[in-house]
Amino acid sequence: MVDVDALKSLLPDGVVVTEAATLENYRYDWSRDPDAGTPIAVVRPTDAEQVQAVVRWAAEHHVGITPRGAGTSLSGGSSATNGGIVVSLERMRAIEIDTTTRVAVVEPGAFNAEVKAAAAQHGLWYPPDPSSYEICSIGGNIATNAGGLCCVKYGVTTDYVLGLDVVLADGEKIVLGGKRIKDVAGLSLLKLFVGSEGTLGIITRAILRLVPAQPPRATLVATFPDAESAARAVVEIGLVTRPSMVELMDNASINIVEDARTMGLDRTAGALLVIQSDAPGAACSAEIEIAEAACAKYGATECFSTDDPEEGELFVEARRAFFPALEGRGALMLEDVGAPVPQLPDLLAGIEKIAANHALAIPVVAHAGDGNTHPTIVFDPTDGAAKDRAAIAFTEIMELAISLGGTITGEHGIGRLKKELLPTQLGSRVMELNRQVKALLDPQGILNPGAIL
Amino acid sequence: MVDVDALKSLLPDGVVVTEAATLENYRYDWSRDPDAGTPIAVVRPTDAEQVQAVVRWAAEHHVGITPRGAGTSLSGGSSATNGGIVVSLERMRAIEIDTTTRVAVVEPGAFNAEVKAAAAQHGLWYPPDPSSYEICSIGGNIATNAGGLCCVKYGVTTDYVLGLDVVLADGEKIVLGGKRIKDVAGLSLLKLFVGSEGTLGIITRAILRLVPAQPPRATLVATFPDAESAARAVVEIGLVTRPSMVELMDNASINIVEDARTMGLDRTAGALLVIQSDAPGAACSAEIEIAEAACAKYGATECFSTDDPEEGELFVEARRAFFPALEGRGALMLEDVGAPVPQLPDLLAGIEKIAANHALAIPVVAHAGDGNTHPTIVFDPTDGAAKDRAAIAFTEIMELAISLGGTITGEHGIGRLKKELLPTQLGSRVMELNRQVKALLDPQGILNPGAIL
Repeated sequence: MVDVDALKSLLPDGVVVTEAATLENYRYDWSRDPDAGTPIAVVRPTDAEQVQAVVRWAAEHHVGITPRGAGTSLSGGSSATNGGIVVSLERMRAIEIDTTTRVAVVEPGAFNAEVKAAAAQHGLWYPPDPSSYEICSIGGNIATNAGGLCCVKYGVTTDYVLGLDVVLADGEKIVLGGKRIKDVAGLSLLKLFVGSEGTLGIITRAILRLVPAQPPRATLVATFPDAESAARAVVEIGLVTRPSMVELMDNASINIVEDARTMGLDRTAGALLVIQSDAPGAACSAEIEIAEAACAKYGATECFSTDDPEEGELFVEARRAFFPALEGRGALMLEDVGAPVPQLPDLLAGIEKIAANHALAIPVVAHAGDGNTHPTIVFDPTDGAAKDRAAIAFTEIMELAISLGGTITGEHGIGRLKKELLPTQLGSRVMELNRQVKALLDPQGILNPGAIL
Repeated sequence: MVDVDALKSLLPDGVVVTEAATLENYRYDWSRDPDAGTPIAVVRPTDAEQVQAVVRWAAEHHVGITPRGAGTSLSGGSSATNGGIVVSLERMRAIEIDTTTRVAVVEPGAFNAEVKAAAAQHGLWYPPDPSSYEICSIGGNIATNAGGLCCVKYGVTTDYVLGLDVVLADGEKIVLGGKRIKDVAGLSLLKLFVGSEGTLGIITRAILRLVPAQPPRATLVATFPDAESAARAVVEIGLVTRPSMVELMDNASINIVEDARTMGLDRTAGALLVIQSDAPGAACSAEIEIAEAACAKYGATECFSTDDPEEGELFVEARRAFFPALEGRGALMLEDVGAPVPQLPDLLAGIEKIAANHALAIPVVAHAGDGNTHPTIVFDPTDGAAKDRAAIAFTEIMELAISLGGTITGEHGIGRLKKELLPTQLGSRVMELNRQVKALLDPQGILNPGAIL
């Protein structure tokens, strides 16, 4: 039995917590992974040196570490393990904006929204915007290479990471990259740590590129008779212009949001696209017109556009309200599958078929412009047969995405819930390389054991 | 002695060449690395299977392979080695534009300019634009994570690589990524191969993201009394806007270009900035005005702006003409150092001091908006003392960049000419990780031996 008191003695009072209630609180992330274990301690360091101390201790005693940001993983990326410890970065939240270099120097526990807000105070912008941006941490964003709504124009987290401090599996801290925009000195280890889901090291500081504030956005909302025609409009839009947002909600997700909170969405619409342009000046309305024409071409039943940012924001809010609106509807299995954009109509049609085959509700919202969809399987957890059908549908949707040249995860990560299908997507040699790189950086396998591999 | 005839027999006629004149032609890249060896064969495969066959043969016989694109490396990235073979990808040049997915599927030997041209036929654009874009290969661009002039707004090569086929050191081919914009399934091995300079595998196919055609650009040309004040204007511009190009030429480089070819540049100017905006519509002239005000604030002696793309292109051409204009001026040592943008004035001032200390001409051009500079040490190769001073200055400039929080290479790669300073920049543990990753993927060390590490 590992002596947790010894760990406590290494760190200031209050950093290591072993109360049962706290341990219970840190077992799960948002995915409520049923296989999550109970940790022997929750460690909440306040600086990188403390992270190093705890990793050194864990390495010495062969104790597994689940690194945790804000716990909003949707794929079991921070499920605790029995006998392991959770290292929560929630207290490391410093944010420093360097306006002349135009970067943010950020500790991993800072929320995405806090980084955005700090940058905005200086007329700057940190683009990546996961739906959960108000409550998810930058460390978690980097660990999953998180996407979001504006990625269709502005790219994903990795495109903004210029530097990382990382505590390796033996407790040594390395510094990768820095406050420089271009740097090709040596192998790109920086990018390897982005998206590594805490399996290769623990991020203790990040240098993030900022850009000038986003110009005001105009918004187009278009309704369609069905999700497939909306998806066809998305493909067309991608051919002719580059909006800053192309989100899709199908009929079921529209109704789930409206049930939770009246937002004035058309409950009869087969699907809804929320499209934004942030092109400057007159180019903005021109882009909206181009998008509107594409929607009309593929059978939009109604189009509404507005230059008023607040009015437009209401529709974005409706889209973001989808996940919270699911609360209390039963058990959920959240998907994150993607396909090449031209295959989006087939992906949506296939998901509909899978839902029908298994008599399941699978509402879909999507970062449609990226081909990245979030079908969510909703079922009654007390109904054993439904639960089994949900598990089958979960796998079938991933298989469908792979068959269309897509991916089983576009932005949430593999975590613990999607491991089974990873070899199918990657192939055996790439899987082996994944395992070898993991073994190289974490020979004892103490960093986020059970995640990805 | 290795039996090259056995290799010849594995491949179609003409793929393996052993004529002395050809071997001589493939010894050097543009850096004219004095330590380049003479290969025993030059192999010019026409497809991935042939690449696999030659790598399998090399692995079996422990023969080093120098992968080579168009041979435009400026850091000795494709110097040949004695007893090794050169695998030139020059015959693998297929380009396929998938307009609905908005990607280019490209073989490594295709030139950057050819990819741009193929995309342009469909109203699309491949942004990365090294100065040598008309004659450098996409494979080499990926191998070095090449930058260019529009990177200041549009990012570097890695930001556009969605998928790679790579032949590993044992001849097996893996497929990483694909035609999907977002994909976080497994560790980011894709990004690890980008910038690996042929040391981890040989790229045989790339899937590159395309974006809509760049809007017409307006151009601002501003002259300054000295390079430092131009650099200060660049820092200011970065605070207030995001142009699509911010290039700098110092007095010496202006005169070198004018000597080679009268372009009408002001020979008396201490430095010149060439700034472009591709903001759409009226936003374009607004951005140029903002940049002009920043230039005025930091002492610009003259500002000239034009909306005429062809007129603007003349100034860009002058900037691109710098490297060709150096021809015949003596021996060259090309630098590629970068610093955080606010340190750009210090970097330029420091380079000037180093030049004075060693009585050397070190003209500078720079992708100033990224803080990435190309000081070029020009000296008489028959003057032994000058050669020694040049070597010292070369090292001192890199040390200066590191001391300013910068990098010894922003876009050219480490190759063989910058290896010595790499440990100083990265630190011992990161160097060790570089070596370990290399050993993992290429245990025999047959891929581009002597490069980077």
